[in-house]
Amino acid sequence: VLASDTRTNAGVDQISTFRKVTVLQDSGTAVFVLLTAGNLATSQAVVNYLTRDAGRKDSEINLFDVPNMFAAAEIVGRVLRNVLKDNADYVKAANADPNAAFLIGGQIKGGRHRLFHIYSAGNFIEAAPETPFVQIGETKYGKPILDRVVEFDTPIRRAVKAALLSFDSTMRSNLSVGLPIDVVVYRKDSFRIDKQIEVTSDDTYYRSLRDGYGEGIVTLFDELPDPKWHL
Amino acid sequence: VLASDTRTNAGVDQISTFRKVTVLQDSGTAVFVLLTAGNLATSQAVVNYLTRDAGRKDSEINLFDVPNMFAAAEIVGRVLRNVLKDNADYVKAANADPNAAFLIGGQIKGGRHRLFHIYSAGNFIEAAPETPFVQIGETKYGKPILDRVVEFDTPIRRAVKAALLSFDSTMRSNLSVGLPIDVVVYRKDSFRIDKQIEVTSDDTYYRSLRDGYGEGIVTLFDELPDPKWHL
Repeated sequence: VLASDTRTNAGVDQISTFRKVTVLQDSGTAVFVLLTAGNLATSQAVVNYLTRDAGRKDSEINLFDVPNMFAAAEIVGRVLRNVLKDNADYVKAANADPNAAFLIGGQIKGGRHRLFHIYSAGNFIEAAPETPFVQIGETKYGKPILDRVVEFDTPIRRAVKAALLSFDSTMRSNLSVGLPIDVVVYRKDSFRIDKQIEVTSDDTYYRSLRDGYGEGIVTLFDELPDPKWHL
Repeated sequence: VLASDTRTNAGVDQISTFRKVTVLQDSGTAVFVLLTAGNLATSQAVVNYLTRDAGRKDSEINLFDVPNMFAAAEIVGRVLRNVLKDNADYVKAANADPNAAFLIGGQIKGGRHRLFHIYSAGNFIEAAPETPFVQIGETKYGKPILDRVVEFDTPIRRAVKAALLSFDSTMRSNLSVGLPIDVVVYRKDSFRIDKQIEVTSDDTYYRSLRDGYGEGIVTLFDELPDPKWHL
């Protein structure tokens, strides 16, 4: 389950909505989902190069010509390093942060489905039983709910529910993250992603989930006893 | 209600416990509670100068010789700026971050009780009806629960409960924040703080609160419906 908000901001007065989810797939042997966070020019450049060269036999960054997901993550890291090498000094000179981070999830025939978090330095870590989710961008507000309910064997629908509530917590506490939320679900060994769900503020499921959780938290808080210390 | 964890870290392998709460009060006309976050050398220096000069008639940073809480916040900001002016370049040369932030809450006879958040730049903002709580340090993990339950007129015991759950969420998600939690409660117009509550891992109230909340969140999450989208 991969989920992303769609807001990018360069100061709160310049909030725009861009898609941060990219799906790359061939006709049944490999599928990749890329999520981005951080500097939009950097992340768009990386996604652009990867999309452009996907399937190009002569390219060294052709994601459809790698033996496994680890090698795919290496390519994302390498392209990111090159984009930063070309641009970082100029961006810093303009007092902006050139850094960007990526998630890449997917599967290549012959291997299992895997999920990697690529840091701005181009190195990366993999989600694992002990760390069953990874986050990029504005991660902290939404981490407590994930820590409480997401495990390695969490079913897909439950994971989607957790992802939406994580974004809801973040959006309540921070203006820079906003609806709609894009959700992509990949089922292992399917080698195909058919749809991307766009969760808008009109979505009845999202609204009932958000409201039910918000009211439930306050009720739970109310029902827990106050301290009896002499204050 | 002022609450602070007690952990300081310079890398996860060097975790120490220091008090980050300082109470300064005279015999019934002024009381101040200082909370610190950030570089420990910077914050200790600031607290040291403020404590040393509190009550010294000849000092320009004597907190017991200010007309109101705004002026007290100005003094904290001024001392912080001076400490950074003396030390920041050396600390940065050692690749460390010299910055520190403060909360100062309290009351001076003739004025109301007030609470300020002093930034590392030495400027500050005041808690207000629209922003009924302020945070320093590792703030994000613990902000969602405060956003949901704390209001300007939240009763004291309820505010203590919220503060403890905010720290619990932070501690679950981040190693750099840890027990015990120091809680100080000031009742307006009392001009006196008699005790500081130290909440340890043995505290039966804290344990029941933490466990009840943790189980309640998971139950709430379980009871909310899964998405019915075709995934």
